[in-house]
Amino acid sequence: MRRRKTRPVRLGGVTVGGDAPVSVQSMTNTDTRDAAATGEQIRRLVEAGCEIVRVAVPDREAALALPEIRRGATIPLVADIHFDHRLALAAIEAGVDGLRINPGNIGGGDRVAAVVKAAAAKNIPIRIGVNAGSLEKDLLRDGAPTSAAMVESALRHVHILENMGFYDIKISLKASDVPLMANAYRMLADKVDYPFHVGVTEAGTIFSGSIKSAVGIGILLWEGIGDTVRVSLTGDPVQEVRAAYEILKSLGLRRKGVELISCPTCARTQIDLVRIAGQVEERLAGLDTPLKVAVMGCVVNGPGEARHADVGVAGGRGEGLIFRKGRVIRKVPESLLLTELMKEIDNLINGGDRDEGFGNAGADSAGSPGGG
Amino acid sequence: MRRRKTRPVRLGGVTVGGDAPVSVQSMTNTDTRDAAATGEQIRRLVEAGCEIVRVAVPDREAALALPEIRRGATIPLVADIHFDHRLALAAIEAGVDGLRINPGNIGGGDRVAAVVKAAAAKNIPIRIGVNAGSLEKDLLRDGAPTSAAMVESALRHVHILENMGFYDIKISLKASDVPLMANAYRMLADKVDYPFHVGVTEAGTIFSGSIKSAVGIGILLWEGIGDTVRVSLTGDPVQEVRAAYEILKSLGLRRKGVELISCPTCARTQIDLVRIAGQVEERLAGLDTPLKVAVMGCVVNGPGEARHADVGVAGGRGEGLIFRKGRVIRKVPESLLLTELMKEIDNLINGGDRDEGFGNAGADSAGSPGGG
Repeated sequence: MRRRKTRPVRLGGVTVGGDAPVSVQSMTNTDTRDAAATGEQIRRLVEAGCEIVRVAVPDREAALALPEIRRGATIPLVADIHFDHRLALAAIEAGVDGLRINPGNIGGGDRVAAVVKAAAAKNIPIRIGVNAGSLEKDLLRDGAPTSAAMVESALRHVHILENMGFYDIKISLKASDVPLMANAYRMLADKVDYPFHVGVTEAGTIFSGSIKSAVGIGILLWEGIGDTVRVSLTGDPVQEVRAAYEILKSLGLRRKGVELISCPTCARTQIDLVRIAGQVEERLAGLDTPLKVAVMGCVVNGPGEARHADVGVAGGRGEGLIFRKGRVIRKVPESLLLTELMKEIDNLINGGDRDEGFGNAGADSAGSPGGG
Repeated sequence: MRRRKTRPVRLGGVTVGGDAPVSVQSMTNTDTRDAAATGEQIRRLVEAGCEIVRVAVPDREAALALPEIRRGATIPLVADIHFDHRLALAAIEAGVDGLRINPGNIGGGDRVAAVVKAAAAKNIPIRIGVNAGSLEKDLLRDGAPTSAAMVESALRHVHILENMGFYDIKISLKASDVPLMANAYRMLADKVDYPFHVGVTEAGTIFSGSIKSAVGIGILLWEGIGDTVRVSLTGDPVQEVRAAYEILKSLGLRRKGVELISCPTCARTQIDLVRIAGQVEERLAGLDTPLKVAVMGCVVNGPGEARHADVGVAGGRGEGLIFRKGRVIRKVPESLLLTELMKEIDNLINGGDRDEGFGNAGADSAGSPGGG
């Protein structure tokens, strides 16, 4: 998993590309004109770990709400604009940290020049966001988008900006079809060194959309492609942030909160594992400190896996063992398993031996293939 | 996405490997000794699309329940056995279609020979199931599993079987760490041509476990590796089957039921998209016929994406357009959108122009990169 070398781009205090960690972003689905509701959603997104937030700016009234939204937000704010260069100028004026706009779609040289000049003056990067669903008609093949056409579309927009001496660029190549988007990103990765915003678009509901996004984004990250990710779900955007971190954590690219290792249960399971795993997940949902917790039902694989976790339980008949860093702490009855496990976790996080707890957690999940 | 060439293996009526489609399997989490409860869970798994089911056989009593479970199950049944060769012999006797047992762990030549001879006599394949959590101690490096150690462990078991002239083998190399498991499968893919059962073990709860599995299984399938998949979740195994199909559908490897393309909603959305998308998913959950349905909130990408779907809606202000195969059928008020969409779907599935409907759906999602 060697990461593709990209030119870093800065949005407010967040760097995308270069050596920066892969960042997590989302988009509000409130009415942007309602600055209070949008601000409140951004606050919830930040709480979930969102690092960059985008808002759609479909009209003048939405643009007028941007200064208030910008003042309230504690993370970089990106304005998503289609077709209308005046909205882009208003957004830049309002102090946004980034633009998502396709320069080929805002009508002619003067308008593009005005936007690019204003963005350059404030060091605001522009994301070119190609979407398979809205490709230029002349690029379609039998009316359908191809990966090559998506790349070609992106390069057209890139050249417009480069010809104006503007290189503060991020690119996305989204489609609802995973092979279509993955191949497009792969192809473009060989042609430019701009950082990529990766995602599967129109992915679906929380269940199916998270899975489809995990496949598409996971494939690219595994190949070292991707500098910032957005999971698109039809639902609460907070779930997008949670799903994004699960994807990044599964590849060892980010570490945040609990990584729960829990077995699927089978006829060998003699404790109520589903309940215990669910409760551990729920109680630790707000945790930021990285922590590997194992909840294992049986003695066959349980102790082996639990050994690599910061803390874990392995169940027997009506009772269980509590492990910590591979050492059995004690045997407890099933009724006390959750309480005792949470007590151990609390000790690890707030106790006097933090070094032991989290130093090792880092080594465990550092994402080096073959390592963990 | 060229698929790795593998030697096909047959479990009852299902072929794994060779040119067979990537199959979906799961494992019961009932008490195997309770044949009725296990049979009922298998029935629910089959209804969800499960094609191979595995049951843990931890003791003699569980083995005694196998004949009844076998009689009731309409899909191939695999017995999962650890350490005890007598349970393997009993399972073969009971008529199971496959064994998951590691021949190196059942104690000595005679015992292995007896199991292999009995399996060969009934054409029952054996899956060697290596798990990073229970590797042989001499293979660990500083106490930790590596991908190379997992491969070495698998090859030891393979050689035991091959030395007895037994080649009816599947292999899995599971770990809870995605890079660890993905690299192990990759390495072994170059060394043997046996089909692979792929999965991430101890993946977690339905939300985090589905995502982690999608990343791990998705990466391998994208590289052409994987002949049968199991998603391991701490929860109802029916969810494992649903998650597995979502992974396979996202790469165009299987087609089953609705593929929902729904946008994440944003400030441009003027219809209640989350509700409509959720209801479409719920109402079509039982559908087996492949169908691509788009539920799009706005005019920017909506019509473009909806054009490639069998049927779709794109929303405007309080109303929406119904599309079918790229043609607008009619404009309807928001209150009737769901009803009218379901009517169109019903027409597509049960109407007189099925060829048009599903022929094209096939071409859309055939998984050829750059195609859909």
